[in-house]
Parts: sequence; structure tokens; C-alpha cells
Amino acid sequence: MIAVLKRETTEKQLKDLIDWLESMNLKVHLSKGDYTTIVGLVGDTTNIDRELLESLDIVEGVKTISEPFKKANRKFHPKDSIVEVGATDGANSVKVGGGHFAVMAGPCSVENPEQIEEVAAGVKAAGASILRGGAFKPRTSPYDFQGLKDEGIQLLEHAKKMTGLPIVTEIMNPNHLPMFEHVDLIQVGARNMQNFELLKELGKIDKPILLKRGLASTLKEWLMSAEYIMAGGNENIILCERGIRTFETYTRNTLDLSAIPMLKELTHLPVIVDPSHATGMARLVKPMALAAVAAGADGLMIEVHNNPSKALCDGAQSLTPDQFAHVMKGVNGIREVME
Amino acid sequence: MIAVLKRETTEKQLKDLIDWLESMNLKVHLSKGDYTTIVGLVGDTTNIDRELLESLDIVEGVKTISEPFKKANRKFHPKDSIVEVGATDGANSVKVGGGHFAVMAGPCSVENPEQIEEVAAGVKAAGASILRGGAFKPRTSPYDFQGLKDEGIQLLEHAKKMTGLPIVTEIMNPNHLPMFEHVDLIQVGARNMQNFELLKELGKIDKPILLKRGLASTLKEWLMSAEYIMAGGNENIILCERGIRTFETYTRNTLDLSAIPMLKELTHLPVIVDPSHATGMARLVKPMALAAVAAGADGLMIEVHNNPSKALCDGAQSLTPDQFAHVMKGVNGIREVME
Amino acid sequence: MIAVLKRETTEKQLKDLIDWLESMNLKVHLSKGDYTTIVGLVGDTTNIDRELLESLDIVEGVKTISEPFKKANRKFHPKDSIVEVGATDGANSVKVGGGHFAVMAGPCSVENPEQIEEVAAGVKAAGASILRGGAFKPRTSPYDFQGLKDEGIQLLEHAKKMTGLPIVTEIMNPNHLPMFEHVDLIQVGARNMQNFELLKELGKIDKPILLKRGLASTLKEWLMSAEYIMAGGNENIILCERGIRTFETYTRNTLDLSAIPMLKELTHLPVIVDPSHATGMARLVKPMALAAVAAGADGLMIEVHNNPSKALCDGAQSLTPDQFAHVMKGVNGIREVME
Amino acid sequence: MIAVLKRETTEKQLKDLIDWLESMNLKVHLSKGDYTTIVGLVGDTTNIDRELLESLDIVEGVKTISEPFKKANRKFHPKDSIVEVGATDGANSVKVGGGHFAVMAGPCSVENPEQIEEVAAGVKAAGASILRGGAFKPRTSPYDFQGLKDEGIQLLEHAKKMTGLPIVTEIMNPNHLPMFEHVDLIQVGARNMQNFELLKELGKIDKPILLKRGLASTLKEWLMSAEYIMAGGNENIILCERGIRTFETYTRNTLDLSAIPMLKELTHLPVIVDPSHATGMARLVKPMALAAVAAGADGLMIEVHNNPSKALCDGAQSLTPDQFAHVMKGVNGIREVME
Repeated sequence: MIAVLKRETTEKQLKDLIDWLESMNLKVHLSKGDYTTIVGLVGDTTNIDRELLESLDIVEGVKTISEPFKKANRKFHPKDSIVEVGATDGANSVKVGGGHFAVMAGPCSVENPEQIEEVAAGVKAAGASILRGGAFKPRTSPYDFQGLKDEGIQLLEHAKKMTGLPIVTEIMNPNHLPMFEHVDLIQVGARNMQNFELLKELGKIDKPILLKRGLASTLKEWLMSAEYIMAGGNENIILCERGIRTFETYTRNTLDLSAIPMLKELTHLPVIVDPSHATGMARLVKPMALAAVAAGADGLMIEVHNNPSKALCDGAQSLTPDQFAHVMKGVNGIREVME
Repeated sequence: MIAVLKRETTEKQLKDLIDWLESMNLKVHLSKGDYTTIVGLVGDTTNIDRELLESLDIVEGVKTISEPFKKANRKFHPKDSIVEVGATDGANSVKVGGGHFAVMAGPCSVENPEQIEEVAAGVKAAGASILRGGAFKPRTSPYDFQGLKDEGIQLLEHAKKMTGLPIVTEIMNPNHLPMFEHVDLIQVGARNMQNFELLKELGKIDKPILLKRGLASTLKEWLMSAEYIMAGGNENIILCERGIRTFETYTRNTLDLSAIPMLKELTHLPVIVDPSHATGMARLVKPMALAAVAAGADGLMIEVHNNPSKALCDGAQSLTPDQFAHVMKGVNGIREVME
Repeated sequence: MIAVLKRETTEKQLKDLIDWLESMNLKVHLSKGDYTTIVGLVGDTTNIDRELLESLDIVEGVKTISEPFKKANRKFHPKDSIVEVGATDGANSVKVGGGHFAVMAGPCSVENPEQIEEVAAGVKAAGASILRGGAFKPRTSPYDFQGLKDEGIQLLEHAKKMTGLPIVTEIMNPNHLPMFEHVDLIQVGARNMQNFELLKELGKIDKPILLKRGLASTLKEWLMSAEYIMAGGNENIILCERGIRTFETYTRNTLDLSAIPMLKELTHLPVIVDPSHATGMARLVKPMALAAVAAGADGLMIEVHNNPSKALCDGAQSLTPDQFAHVMKGVNGIREVME
Repeated sequence: MIAVLKRETTEKQLKDLIDWLESMNLKVHLSKGDYTTIVGLVGDTTNIDRELLESLDIVEGVKTISEPFKKANRKFHPKDSIVEVGATDGANSVKVGGGHFAVMAGPCSVENPEQIEEVAAGVKAAGASILRGGAFKPRTSPYDFQGLKDEGIQLLEHAKKMTGLPIVTEIMNPNHLPMFEHVDLIQVGARNMQNFELLKELGKIDKPILLKRGLASTLKEWLMSAEYIMAGGNENIILCERGIRTFETYTRNTLDLSAIPMLKELTHLPVIVDPSHATGMARLVKPMALAAVAAGADGLMIEVHNNPSKALCDGAQSLTPDQFAHVMKGVNGIREVME
């Protein structure tokens, strides 16, 4: 970490600053120029509050040299991490990352046995390797449907037994963990990306975690949230880009695909993309899924429903199994040429 | 709620849509024009998923007429709500809203008995009516100081006894509620604004809640989070604007003061402003505090620390008690002329 | 256009509103419900100031049914537009849109004859079909290099003669148009996307225009800027997505690839993507170029320089001709599988 | 300027970098640590392309010490600038900045002689010291009213003669400058803030310029645009904050009032605020005008119209003269207590 001091800093102020920094067991490296003085800090700078340092009257600016994330940092783990999902409870084992590509598909909400069975069979046939489905639903309004909860999880487990597909579903409360015993991949949603109490609890288990990017989170904050889980001992994390909040209103969010190659540089964790939530429109899912694959994603998460009777819903965020099969064909085409 | 249909909608599609809407107990009101057909919905439209409706192939767009928040809505509660803080446990009662103005001040983190006692005495002398202090700290990094936790709360309770000031501190986990028994006002931080599981639990108690705006939350989403708490039965909510995330980097966040008069129109809940977190710089706290008062805020939340020895920290986010007293003078001046 | 009136609207106010609207030659269509009154407007609503209508005391909200852009609107021109670049002055004719894919490549700034000749030859060999190069440079700072201006254009013309590649370069001032006589495609940069005086002048000529998206422009505003040029009579417009401003700081801007399929729905104009400016990092150019192609782009604009001696610059925004050839290989692979 | 090098930088790469930097007449100051090497640059770093340096493979990051703006920088001009408007052509002289506060008021568009005369008289009576009115109107749509142009300017000049109020109106094209001969303060709108060709022309004249902030411009970019004008020789600039683009949709833009104290630190130029455009709602103009004054603004720009017959428009962005007089009373109250 480097602090650049203001020109008008007095010797007394400089000495006070150095004393304070050294009191935190840091080696201080001074470099005085005609116009400015640079204070380099060597040692464990994680104890320093960067914002505090930055806000000192005599400090012009602070530059962090090393990234604040360690366990998630590719510098210290150059090889791609491979996260293994399933392989217990009768589910097939699915690898994500390090060249392994996985598609997670299923309904936004688990609704009833017929629905989840039919969708599970459909997405499996089309080539999905993990079944997704919402049981606990974070809704902006308290008056909206909040999910089938534990009943929804049981329906997913049933579909797993039927198809052999491992299952992924969202957790919203650490107290619910016992219900997730047979869930193969636990999802942390965008709104809970900085629910640190939840992240800490997930750091104590050994199940893989799917960590979605917060709606207005920087890549650094996202990786720091992964670090929360990893610091607790659980290093099985898959990152999922799902669109960020911008001023554009035609699409629900703005899918940030440049996050994929950028993350590949910064971290060894696998990165997948959810084009369904990002765009909010089924007809944009295919082009954005193909683009995600071309940008280097390790997988996709796609909403698929089955409503043969509700023909009205064709335009919604979810694809029908047939439309999903069509997307998978395109995805496989791009995947082949990428290799 | 109104849905505007596309020109190419067939009679069959229109009938299907109406059947579906009527199956949800809504009265459908049709208005056919040369170029478009408008479907007006009368009844309890809260059961309708607006996004689903919007995404139907035949729907050009949807316009919600009534706001989705009800208990927080000024339309149904034209009078300003007044939230009462304290008045038990030996704390003085403090009113916020409806013409009652309150300043909450204290350190970012509670550190030790001397610190909190000294700051509490200082802010009380300068005119603060509620003592703030962080015990559980949401930090971006797992390696940063996470607060003194229950010990911090006990130190706050001690300072309350000493000064008679009611206390406010942040909760991050519903499981911690028993520790908050003697806390007078429970704060929900920006990162937890959409931690719906936490909000639901807070809806079951009768203590007042200070709900901070999420970093990238719209006013509507914020009010819906208040609605989560209110829907559970707890209507004692104070909203706190603390800056939103934008592209500007000079200030930490962008303080959205137009939110104050806008919220005054939309809701009956009191609105206060935290200029310390929004700007991240002590020297911007005074002008933004005065501006907040001039814009109609019902109170302020300001960070004050006591570090006579760490003269280096003058520029930080926190004010010294003396600087805070100076801000209070300015605030009182504006308050007088506002009346 | 539909206006939803507030419940408390009086008969007198309603009559005044209708009179005013009818005075603008609009047919008013009234639909009264129990809770609300809807005013539908039929006729040429372009004369109505939507914001004014929206801000009336009695108006709850306004919903525009038809898009405000007409000549750019796919609804009225279902077939893809094909823009033809070059084909005079000895340049080869290049088509963009409607299945025709074109890559524009070259240096950020034209610097000297050797540079532009070498780069032009290099990008042609690698498969680029249009040569780009900056002569007039919009720089944030008045103290930064502003481009070679007319001399730069002459160097581009020389490179065109040498290679047969049509040339594209940016215009910043309508008064400079005479210098652009031999430029085949005139670029309007992001900062000038709403320089309406410039757009109007470009509407009077018949050369194709490359219109870059403004840094914080919505798709609608962008299409309205295209409409400015088209309203003047020049319908040869290529849109270029080049990243939008968000809160993320790792990448220079956030490349909005979902804009491609969204624009394909809204307009018949060709859409290309500039991954160099969007990301600001050469090493992100390839993944984002491939992703753009997979998302359906009609072309790419890529920065290529030649600095064999300045090996230091490898990491910059620009690719070397060799790196560019490598990107082209990947692009062609994706293009093949897309067909 | 400081560049922090990556750990893996070789001696050869370091030497190449130093040679390159020294070839640009910079003194290089090296500081090697165990983990990193810091390169400090002394001399005129304005020739260095910061982005290029930042993007080199061996560079971890770059930190600029001095601000890139010079003439606008308070460091080099500690005293507040006072800009004088009018005082020729029979207009009263009005000072802005350095303790001088000015209110500019008038209609969005100049429409006809009666309108401008009546509004001018009204705003003068209420205490405005400068008359504003749009003659050239930048509109998102080419089909919207583009202003009365030169006729509008003549009507403003007529109102100036009548009232003695200096006039301010927007310029969109440097070719129009001859029409602005009798305009006392020339406005550059948000959309043209980075129309560098226009800024350069305005640098050659000696009339004061009102420079509005771009919709998505950082404070630094805004000050660099001021620098464009000042670099040309014209240092009479007033900055005008008018709201920035964010994700919030209730208000048209988000008024960034923290920009006022922040700018006061960075620059000596006067700063005024336009609450009418920022919020787009007349009923938010008063609270935001008062807040701007409390935050330290040197003036206000407020839209006032006269439409006694169009009672419908009460809720629009513009105030009536009576409402404006009411705002002025509040403003004067805050101003008194601020002194």
C-alpha cells in the first residue's frame, strides 16, 4: 500500500503518521520528491483501514498494490479451480471450471410435482447437467408469492432422484440450512451477496456455493464476498454474473459480459452467466447465452418452464423446453469452435 | 393496472388473456382503439406478476396506477407518522417525524468504555438526542474488524444509563435479536435493505426500526422493504438516506437529497439523512447536513469520534465533538428559519 | 399515448385537459373506471410534450405506446438495412448489415505515413475490410494531443489508395465537412452523439455515418440521434456500441452486448461493436469481439497499432497486427458456426 | 505521477520503461521494495498518456498526484473567482461567486413578446438578477420544437432593455456566435459539455460562460471542460450542477448537491444549481433550491413561466411568477442565516 502525502505536510505530521503506521507493525518506506512524499507500507496491510488513511488531511491519495482478496486471488492460485457438484445422494457428479462446462436449467419457482418433473426431464434431454428451481423466493414485495419453501426443496429432491441431475436452489436464511441437506449446490442470490452473516455460515459447510453478483456490486466487492465464504474454509465457489443496474431501461439489467475475462484474470474460481434474469426477456436469452460462451463462461443458468396451456407466456423470461433445446444446440456449436 | 396490447393481437389471444385475468378475480375493462387495445384491471392486482404480464408476446407495455406499497403509502395515511424512540429503560423519549427533528450521533464503531462515554457526553452536550454506535459491523472484507458485538451493545447500554440518550445500533442477523433487548432503535444497514428474512423478523417486534436505503435501491424498492416490516405489524419505521452508487468517484457515494421531498409525497414515514457515510469526508458533513435540513429532513445521523491523540484523523469521515457542536449550530440556524 | 388521471381530478379539470389536447388536433378517447380515468390519444402525438403532460397535477402517469423514432423503427421497415461503404475514389465497396459482416481496424490516431501504411497493410492481410484511424481526436484534456487533423485525413486517403480499403474517421465540427470529401464513412463519437447541430448537417449529405452510442445514452436516445440524421434525408447509418458508464471500475466502460439483440428488434439499422474502447485493455478485446459476434453484431471496430520498438505497449488498448490476425481467426470461427 | 510495477517485471523491461519516460523529458525517481517497484515521475507529466501507461503489461497501477486541470484549480488560484455578468448594453452588472449570489430565472423557451416581457417583469420583481430563456433548444427528438432561434434572442434582448436584467441563453453551434453579441452570459448545455470544438471557440471570446455539467460527467471531466475554455484565454466561467443520470426513476435526474462543497475545494470558479431540470417537477424546486443554498451554492437557475390560462400546467417543471416569489423568500431566509 502506498500513501501519497500532500506537499504542505509538516515534519511533525509526517513523524506522527509514521509512528502510527509502525505501531501497526508495518515497515514504512519513505520516498521524498520535490513536490511530494510517498509513503510505502510493507507488511500485513490488511489491518489498515484504507478509507481512514485516505481521508487524513495530509494524504493526497492511497494506492493499494495488492488485491484485498487472497484465497480467491489467481496470483496465489494460478490454476483454475474445478468445483464438483453432486456425486452423493444418487446425483451424477458435475464439474464446473477448468474446461468443464455446465448448464443449470429449470423453473424460476418450483410449483408442483408435475411441473418440476416435466421440466427436469425436458432440460435433461436437452443437455442440462444441473436442475435449478426456486423454493425460497426473494421478492421485492411482501405481498408477492414467496415460494413453496421446504415443500419446494422436497419436490426438487424428488426430481433429482428421478433424473439423476444434481439440484441448485437459493438460500435466504442461515437457519434454513438443515433443509438444504440434500441440495447439491446452494445459491446465494444477488440481494444477499453482502449478507455477511449468511456468507459466514456457508463458509462453515463443505457444499459448493453459487454466488450471484449483487445488482450494484463491483467485481472487487463480489470477490470479497467469495472471500468471506472461503475464509471460513469452504473454497467450492462458483461465481454467477446476472446483470448489473444501470440507467438503461429496455433490458431489466445490463449483462456485464466483460466481467468474464476480467474475472478469469483476477480469480481462479469458475464463472457462469444467467442470461434469463439479466435481460428479463426469453427472446434475448439465446443471443446472450451464446455471447457468454464466446466470452469464456464456464457455464450457464437458464430459466425453463412448462406451460403448454398458458400459451400467453411465450414472451416471458422463461423458455419452454423446446426453446431451451434450441439454445443448447447453439451453445454446443459455439463450444466446439471455442476449443 | 393497465396493459396496452400490441396491434397484431388476435381475438383468440385477447380472449385467452381475459380468461386468465378473470381467473384471478379481476374485473377486466376493455378499451379498443384503432391502433391499440387497452386492458384495464380493477380489483386486487397484487396477485398479478407485473413482470410476467409485461413479458407476454401480445403486451406492448404495462402501467401500474397504484403504488405497490400500501401501509407505507401516504395516500392511505395522509398524516405524518411520528416514531417514538426510547422512553423505557431509563432513556428519554425522542420523537422523529411530523415536525419533530432528531439528531443521532456517535462513533462508527464502539471501541471501549472511555471512548463511548466521552463521545456520548460530547454529543449530548452539543444537542444530539440519540446515541449511535456500531457493535456489529458489516465490512466488505472478512479480514476487517467486525465490531465488538454483544460487548459493544453493553457499552452502549452503559452510555445510555449515563446520559439518558436512547441508543441506535445495527442488526445483521435475526438470531441476534435477544441481544438488542435494550436497544431503543434497531438499524438495518444499506447492504441488508433487501435481506427479507431479517425484515420479516423485525416486523414481528414492536421496537422502532431505522431502515437505511440500499446502495443501488430505488425509492420504490426502499418503500417495499419498509412494507415488509410493516406488513408484519411493526409500523415504527424511520427511513435514512445515506447516498447511492453512481459513476462519480470524488465522493464515496452520491447523496440523493431530492429523495427527501419525493419521499414526503410518497410516504408518511419520517426521513432522516446520514451525510457522514454518503460523502465519506468529515469536511463535507456540515454543508450536506445543512442542505438535508433545508430539503426537509426529519433528522440527521452523524459520525462523531474522540481521538484527541490521533490528530491525524482530522480529515476522516468522523467529526470531533467540537466540530459536531459547530455543525449543530448551523443545523439549528437553518431549522429556525425553516419554521 | 395514454394518460392516467388521478382519482381526485374534477370534471372541470378533465374538460380543460380534453380541450387542450383537442386543440392539438388529437382525438381523445376516454375510459372512466371506479378508481381512475384513462385518456387515450389518437393522432400525431409527436406534438405533445410528454414530460409536460406527465407533470400535470391531475396526471398520475403517461404511457407512450408507439416508439418516438420512425425512420429508424423496424416496425415501419421490417427488412434489415444494408449500408454500403466506399465504392468510389478507388475504394472497394463494403456492405454492412443484412447478413453482411465488416471489420474496421486501424490505429487510434494516425501518426505518420509509415505507421498508417504498415497498419493498413497488416489489417487488410488479416481480413479487415475498412481502415479506421483518428485524425480529429476528442480528448478530455485540452493539453492532450488533438490529432493530426487534415494531415491525418490525407494520410488515410493515401493508405486507401494503397490498399483499396475504404476509410472511416471521426468528425467533430460540421465546418470540417469539406475535409471529409474522400472519407468513405464518417464517424460521430460518443461525446457528440447528442451534438444535434452536427447531426443535422450530417443529415444533409449522402455519405454513410457511423454513430457511436453516448457514454450514458439509452437505446431510445441513441435511436433518436439516428433519427436526427435520417430526418434530414440521410438514412445510411451504422450504430456502434462502445460501452456505457457504470459504477464498475475494473473495465473502462461496461460493454452492453444485450444492446445488439435489443436493437435488432427495435431498428433495421446495422449494429457493430467496438470492444477496444469499451474495455480499454487489449487482452479483453478478443473475448469481447467473439461475444459480440455470437450476440449477432454486424461488424466490429478494433484498434490496431504497429510499434515493434515499443514493446512496452503490449498491454495497451491496441492490438498488434499479429494479435489482430489472431482475433480475426476466432471471429471467423464463430461467424461460420453462427450461419 | 506514480507508476507501481508488477513484481515480475524484469530488469530489461524496467530499463526500457525508464528510457521511454526519460525520452519525454521526465525525471524518473525509482523506489524498489521487496514486493514492488515504484516509479515516480517528476516534470511535465501532461505529455504522458495515463491510460497507455496504466495498460502496460508490467504496470500494476498508476496514481496521478496532481489534478489534470490547472487554470481551474484552486491550488494555483486560492481566491474565489468572481464572474461579472452584464454591465454593457444597458444591462445591470451582476456578480457571481466570492460571496456574490445570483438567481437566473425565466422560461424554458422564449415563445413570444408578451410571454417574455411578463415573465421578465415577474422574476425581476421577485428578486432574480439575470433573465434566462431558451432560443436554441437541444431536443432529444428531431420532431420536437427546436426554439425560436435568432428571433428568440431578439426577444430576450428586448426584455433586457425593458428590465435592465442581463440575459443568459444556450448556444449549440459555434457558427451562431454572431447572434450572441448582445447576450450577457452564454450557456453551454449538458449535452454539449464535451463538444470540444464549441468549447474552444468560447475560449476565444471574453464573454462569461455558464457551463452545465454533463448528464454522466464526473467532476474531473467537468473541470477539464472548463479548462478547455480557460486554456483558450476566457476564464469567466460559472459552473452549473443540473443533476446526473442514475438508476432512480422517480426524479428525472439525481441532483448531486455534494458536488458544491467538493467543487469549492477543487476549483475557484463559482458554482450554481438548476433544481428545475434536475428534478423535472415544480413541486421539488423549492426544497432543492433551499438545499442548494444551504450547501453553499453561489446562485440558482430556475424555470419560470406565465400561463394564467393553462392552469393545467401547475405541476410542470416551471414555476409561476408567484410560486417563484415564494421560493425567493425561502432562499433569502436561508441566505441570511448562512452569513
